[in-house]
Amino acid sequence: MRLATVVTPHGPRVVAHVGDHYVDLHATDPGLPTCIKNLLAGGAGVKVAAADAAKCSKAVRYATNAVKLLPPVPKPSKILCVGLNYRDHAIEGGKAIPTEPVLFAKYPNTLIASGDPIKLPKVAQKVDYEAELVIVIGKRGRHIPNDDTAFQHVGGYTCGHDVSARDWQFRGEEKQWSIGKTFDTFAPTGPVLVTPDELGDPHKLQVQLRLNGETMQNSNTKEFIFGVPHMLWFLSQVVTLEPGDLIFTGTPPGVGIARKPPVLLKAGDVAEVEIQGIGVLRNPVVAE
Amino acid sequence: MRLATVVTPHGPRVVAHVGDHYVDLHATDPGLPTCIKNLLAGGAGVKVAAADAAKCSKAVRYATNAVKLLPPVPKPSKILCVGLNYRDHAIEGGKAIPTEPVLFAKYPNTLIASGDPIKLPKVAQKVDYEAELVIVIGKRGRHIPNDDTAFQHVGGYTCGHDVSARDWQFRGEEKQWSIGKTFDTFAPTGPVLVTPDELGDPHKLQVQLRLNGETMQNSNTKEFIFGVPHMLWFLSQVVTLEPGDLIFTGTPPGVGIARKPPVLLKAGDVAEVEIQGIGVLRNPVVAE
Repeated sequence: MRLATVVTPHGPRVVAHVGDHYVDLHATDPGLPTCIKNLLAGGAGVKVAAADAAKCSKAVRYATNAVKLLPPVPKPSKILCVGLNYRDHAIEGGKAIPTEPVLFAKYPNTLIASGDPIKLPKVAQKVDYEAELVIVIGKRGRHIPNDDTAFQHVGGYTCGHDVSARDWQFRGEEKQWSIGKTFDTFAPTGPVLVTPDELGDPHKLQVQLRLNGETMQNSNTKEFIFGVPHMLWFLSQVVTLEPGDLIFTGTPPGVGIARKPPVLLKAGDVAEVEIQGIGVLRNPVVAE
Repeated sequence: MRLATVVTPHGPRVVAHVGDHYVDLHATDPGLPTCIKNLLAGGAGVKVAAADAAKCSKAVRYATNAVKLLPPVPKPSKILCVGLNYRDHAIEGGKAIPTEPVLFAKYPNTLIASGDPIKLPKVAQKVDYEAELVIVIGKRGRHIPNDDTAFQHVGGYTCGHDVSARDWQFRGEEKQWSIGKTFDTFAPTGPVLVTPDELGDPHKLQVQLRLNGETMQNSNTKEFIFGVPHMLWFLSQVVTLEPGDLIFTGTPPGVGIARKPPVLLKAGDVAEVEIQGIGVLRNPVVAE
């Protein structure tokens, strides 16, 4: 299934994306939850009921161009970000290939939907793009094994844009990345969440970033240093993963700051993250 | 006022701490919110009504020893942490005095209440204590001025314990601190939130940490490198601060890892953070 969250007259609702419309799952089947976290956390019965609702002839539908899209998970408890997870990107940044994932944070103030503007902060001068596959947790877990059973904890995948102010990311003596990563609007996600059964192998997905139509990043998740089970194992040694938590999985080569001359985001740009089997996350860039 | 959040038969409720009991503010005055975020975000009228409810002869009361305490803000959107904010602590860690605040993150999985156990993670060997004053945001803000008007955004203050796994904080090439700071149970807060009018000047508070009754940290917020308005100004250049957001303000000298020989938390320990005018945040230490 392809799930999204949209604004309805009844508030934010989880919907299934089917063709040129969205099916309001709760309005179609009141036994289904209104919010995507509870849908992802639901058992097999909930998923079957949601799939049934999505194709029901009496489904409550909205035309896709008639409702406002929200981030697939509007209010996650955690946005965990793994850095340097593509071998070539580590090399382009002059970094050693990490022997384990590097964690940094974005806070929920960063989240925007496809179509919403990325705001260039007044105080940042070097704002860069980063296309990323995002894992969405479906099932609570701690000490998740580093094997295929880890996939049971995945609720789906979406496109993410890890917008990064390089002048803040590497600022000061301590170079703690999070502050450069967590400006308002710095985490576009969407447009939809695709469930694992529909997406297939997450380690064979083309990941692209286009800036004003020009391809700037173009790689494949087969280049991951750490795969999905490894990331879930590593992170869940530290935190209990909860339904709706987002894991940004790192970006491939081609970021703006590593180019000669550097390419930085400017007002008027349009950035698109496209991931095979998920879709296009498209955001205009504006000045704050 | 002294506010807390406790478990009631109706779910978590914001209460006022008065003597040996808690007053359920919403149960006493149904016009008041059930959750602390909405109470803090409320205007002057809400605060007056809450103060009236707290001293009402017909107030709905719970004995303090009869209800389970939760963290004052059980589900904040952000837990922002400032590192190296006491001059002497920067020196004891061999760090340069920072010229601006250093940010790192804890996620909401870290939050526990006074009385709850700090769990020593299976995978961490060097778990240390850090006593901290915590600012709780009351009013939304971005680009907050670095002057006394910043205090309008403060909803209150509480005690925080920034539990830190040193072997994870300084791990790998990149030394991104957050992963060592965000293990489950690594952010005890409480026992209560004290409003600014009741607490007085936040830059004149004694801050202590006691381990098994022995004083390990003992300083005063007058030693802050960056005061409350400076922190709110700095952080709100980056993120929109929201009601209920927590800001850990750094720890004074005396941390375990800087001692010779080092002092590390072990199962059976009891850690107490005491801040003048707020109270004692007391947590036993157990193995995961």
